[in-house]
Amino acid sequence: MTRETLRQVLNSTDRRSGRLFAFTIQFLILVSLVSFSLDTLPDLSDRTHEMLGVLEIVTVAIFTLEYGLRLAVAENKRKFIFSFYGLVDLLAILPFYVAAVDLRAIRIFRLLRLVRILKLFKYNQAVKRFNRALSLAKEELTLFGFVAAIMLYLSAVGIYYFEHAAQPDQFKSVFHSLWWAVTTLTTVGYGDAYPITAGGKVFTCVVLMVGLGIIAVPTGLLASALSQAREEETDETDE
Amino acid sequence: MTRETLRQVLNSTDRRSGRLFAFTIQFLILVSLVSFSLDTLPDLSDRTHEMLGVLEIVTVAIFTLEYGLRLAVAENKRKFIFSFYGLVDLLAILPFYVAAVDLRAIRIFRLLRLVRILKLFKYNQAVKRFNRALSLAKEELTLFGFVAAIMLYLSAVGIYYFEHAAQPDQFKSVFHSLWWAVTTLTTVGYGDAYPITAGGKVFTCVVLMVGLGIIAVPTGLLASALSQAREEETDETDE
Amino acid sequence: MTRETLRQVLNSTDRRSGRLFAFTIQFLILVSLVSFSLDTLPDLSDRTHEMLGVLEIVTVAIFTLEYGLRLAVAENKRKFIFSFYGLVDLLAILPFYVAAVDLRAIRIFRLLRLVRILKLFKYNQAVKRFNRALSLAKEELTLFGFVAAIMLYLSAVGIYYFEHAAQPDQFKSVFHSLWWAVTTLTTVGYGDAYPITAGGKVFTCVVLMVGLGIIAVPTGLLASALSQAREEETDETDE
Amino acid sequence: MTRETLRQVLNSTDRRSGRLFAFTIQFLILVSLVSFSLDTLPDLSDRTHEMLGVLEIVTVAIFTLEYGLRLAVAENKRKFIFSFYGLVDLLAILPFYVAAVDLRAIRIFRLLRLVRILKLFKYNQAVKRFNRALSLAKEELTLFGFVAAIMLYLSAVGIYYFEHAAQPDQFKSVFHSLWWAVTTLTTVGYGDAYPITAGGKVFTCVVLMVGLGIIAVPTGLLASALSQAREEETDETDE
Repeated sequence: MTRETLRQVLNSTDRRSGRLFAFTIQFLILVSLVSFSLDTLPDLSDRTHEMLGVLEIVTVAIFTLEYGLRLAVAENKRKFIFSFYGLVDLLAILPFYVAAVDLRAIRIFRLLRLVRILKLFKYNQAVKRFNRALSLAKEELTLFGFVAAIMLYLSAVGIYYFEHAAQPDQFKSVFHSLWWAVTTLTTVGYGDAYPITAGGKVFTCVVLMVGLGIIAVPTGLLASALSQAREEETDETDE
Repeated sequence: MTRETLRQVLNSTDRRSGRLFAFTIQFLILVSLVSFSLDTLPDLSDRTHEMLGVLEIVTVAIFTLEYGLRLAVAENKRKFIFSFYGLVDLLAILPFYVAAVDLRAIRIFRLLRLVRILKLFKYNQAVKRFNRALSLAKEELTLFGFVAAIMLYLSAVGIYYFEHAAQPDQFKSVFHSLWWAVTTLTTVGYGDAYPITAGGKVFTCVVLMVGLGIIAVPTGLLASALSQAREEETDETDE
Repeated sequence: MTRETLRQVLNSTDRRSGRLFAFTIQFLILVSLVSFSLDTLPDLSDRTHEMLGVLEIVTVAIFTLEYGLRLAVAENKRKFIFSFYGLVDLLAILPFYVAAVDLRAIRIFRLLRLVRILKLFKYNQAVKRFNRALSLAKEELTLFGFVAAIMLYLSAVGIYYFEHAAQPDQFKSVFHSLWWAVTTLTTVGYGDAYPITAGGKVFTCVVLMVGLGIIAVPTGLLASALSQAREEETDETDE
Repeated sequence: MTRETLRQVLNSTDRRSGRLFAFTIQFLILVSLVSFSLDTLPDLSDRTHEMLGVLEIVTVAIFTLEYGLRLAVAENKRKFIFSFYGLVDLLAILPFYVAAVDLRAIRIFRLLRLVRILKLFKYNQAVKRFNRALSLAKEELTLFGFVAAIMLYLSAVGIYYFEHAAQPDQFKSVFHSLWWAVTTLTTVGYGDAYPITAGGKVFTCVVLMVGLGIIAVPTGLLASALSQAREEETDETDE
C-alpha cells in the first residue's frame, strides 16, 4: 500500500475502504462516549469498572494509531498538528497519557471527538442551506438577539425590584433574577423561582406577553430563511 | 351475497354498506379503547367491572368475526395472515383467547387496533402532502436531529460536571442528567431537577439560548415544507 | 327619529351615532366584566359590594333597554329572538331577573356578552384571511389533530404502565395519566406529575422527541397558511 | 475644533472620531449597567461598595459632560431638552444629583440609558424590515391579541369556577386565576398553581388544546411576515 493510498483511505470517503475506515472511527467515538457516560453511573461493580477501563485503553490505542497514521501521511506535519482537527484529535488522546492517575476532569476532553462527527456533514447540502439561511437572516437574528438580551436584563431588574423584599432568597440580586428571567422567557418554568407579590405577577404577565414573541421569533425566522434557501436552489436548478 | 360483494364491503368504502361497516369497526375500536381505559380506574364497583367484561367479550367476538370473514374472502390466505393489517388484527384479539386469566400486560396489545384508525387517512391528500414535506425537508431534519442529539448529550455532560457534587441525587450520572437535558431543552421544566450552583445556572442559560433554536427549528421546518408542498400542488393544478 | 334611523343606529356603524352606540355598549360589556371579576375578590368591604351591586343594576338596565329597542325595531320579532345574537343578549340579562337571589353560578351567563365583542371583527379583513387560512390548511389540521389525539392517548397508556406501580397516586388510571400527557406534550410541565422510574423517563424522552413536533406543527401550519392567504390577496389586487 | 465638528462627532458615526465617541458612550452604558447589577449582590465587601461608588461618580460625570456638550452644540436648546433622547439622558443623570442620599428606587432611572443602545439600530435594514413586517401583519396581530385576551379571561373565569372551592388560596379570585391562565397558556407552568379537581383538569386540557394555537400563532405570523418583507426587498433590487 503506497503512502498515497493510505492518505486517501484516511481522508476521503470516495473509496469503499475510506468509507469503512471513517465509519469505524465514528463508531469508536460513539463507543468511547457511551463508556465515558457509563463510567459516571454510581454503584457500578468492580468488574464493570475494569471492563470500561480496558475498553478505554483499546479505544485510546486505536485513536493514537489513527493520529500517528494521519501525522505520517501528512505532507506538512506542522500544518497538520496545528490544524483544527489535528488539535482536536491530539487533545482527545493526550489526557490519557499525561495523567497516569484517573482524573475525571481531564477525561472530559474526550468529548472533543464529538466534533469529528460533524465532519460527516462537511459536504452535506443541508449544511450549505443552513449557512445560506443564516446569512439571509443574519441582520434580523442579530437585532433580535440584541433586543432579547435587553429584554432579559430589564425583566431581571424589574422582578428584582418587585420581589426582592418578599423573597430575598430567590431574588437575591439582579444576577439571581436573571436566572428567573431566562427560565421564564424560555417558558421552561422550573418552579424554583416565581413571583408571589401582586406587582411581580402583573409584571411577569406583561413581560411574558411582550417577551415571548421576541424570544420565539428567531426560531421562526431561521425556519423561514431555510425554506427560502431551499427555494433559491430549486430556482437555480430550473434555470 | 356473493364472496366478491362481501370482499368489497370489508375492504373498500366505495359502497354505502362498505362505509357503514368501516365506521362500525372504527366505532368499536373506540369503544374498546374507552372500556380498556375505564378498566384502569381504581375504586370501580364489581357491577362496572362485570359490565366492562361483557363489553370486552362482545367487542372481541365481533373483531374475531371480522378477522374470520377477512380470512375467508382473502384470495391468498397466507399472504393475508402475514400482511401488516392481518398481523395487527390477530395480535389484537389473540391475547383474549390465549390468556384465560386476566392479564393486563397482554391486553395492551388491543391498542394495536389504533393503527387501523390510521387506515382512514390512507387516500388522504394531507398525508401525501405530509410525505412530500418530509422528503423536501429530509436533509435538514436529519441534520437537526443529529445536532439536537449531540446538543442534548453535551448539555447532560456539562450539567453533570457542574451539579453532580452539589446534588448527587438529581444528577447521579450522565444518564440521569440526560433526563434534565431533555425536559429543559423541550421547555417542559417539571422542576424535579434544576441547577442550584452558579456555574450550573450560567451553563443552563447558555444552553437554553443556543439549544432552544436547535430543538425548535425542525417544527418550523416541517410547517414551511408543508406549505411549500401545498404550493406545488396548486402550481400543478394551474398548469 | 324614525324607526328606520333607530335601526341603523342599533345595527350599523356607518353613521357617527351608530359607532358611538356600538362603542358605548362594548365599553359597558367591559365594565360589566371587570365588576364581575372584582366581585370574586375576597375581603371586599360591604361598601364595595354595594357599589358593585348598583353598577350591576345599571348595566343590566341598559342592556335590557338595548334588548327592548332591538326587539322593537326588528321586522321579524320571532326571528330576532331566536337569532344567535338575540339569544346571547337574552341569556346575558335573564339571570338577573329570574334569580332574585344572588346566584353566582347563573351570573356566569353574563360572560356570554363577550361574544358580542367579536362582532367588532365582523367586517374585518383579518378574519376573512383567517378563515381562508383555515380552509387552506383544513386537511392538515384535521390530520394533525387526529394524530395528536392518538399520540396523547398512547402516551397516557404508556406512562400508566411504567409509572402506575411506582406512583399509584399520580398515575391512578389512564385518565389520570392523560392529564400528565397533556401538560407534558404542551410543554407546560407543572411538576405535579412526572415519571420517576427509569423506564418512565426513557419513555417520556421518546414521547417528547416524537410528540412535540406533532403538537407544535399545527401552529406553524396556521401561521404559514395565513401568510399564503395574504399573498393571494396581494396577487388579486395586482391583477 | 469648531462647533460644527463637535456636533458631527457627537451625533453622527460617519467619521472615525464619531464612531469612537459613540462606542465609548455605549461601553460606559454597559459598565454602568454591570456596576448597577453588581451593587445589588448581597455580601459585598465595603471595599467593593466603595469601588462601585467611585465608578458611578466617574460614569455619571462623563454622562453629564456628554449631556452638557450636546446641549452646547444644539441649535435649538429647548428642542433638545424636550426631545426624546434629551429627556432620556437627563433622567439618567438627574437622580444622582437630586438625591444626595443613596436611593435605590431612583437609581433605576439609569436603566433608561439602555434605550440609547437602540440608537445603534437606527439606520439598520433589519429594523426597517421589522417595521414593514409589523405593518404587513398588523391586522392579524391585533385580531389575535384581542382573541388571546378574551381567551385568557375566559380561562381564568372557568378555572375559578372549577377550582375555587377546592383551592381557595391558589384561585382566590378571577384576578388570581388570571395568573394561572397566563403561566399555563404561555406554557411556562411554574407549578405554583394547577388544577386538582377532575373538572378543572379536563377544562385545562380543553383550554390548552384550543388556546395554545391562539397564543403561539402571532409569533409564527411575525416570522413569516418578516420573510415576506425580505422577499419584497429582493424583488425591488431585481427590478
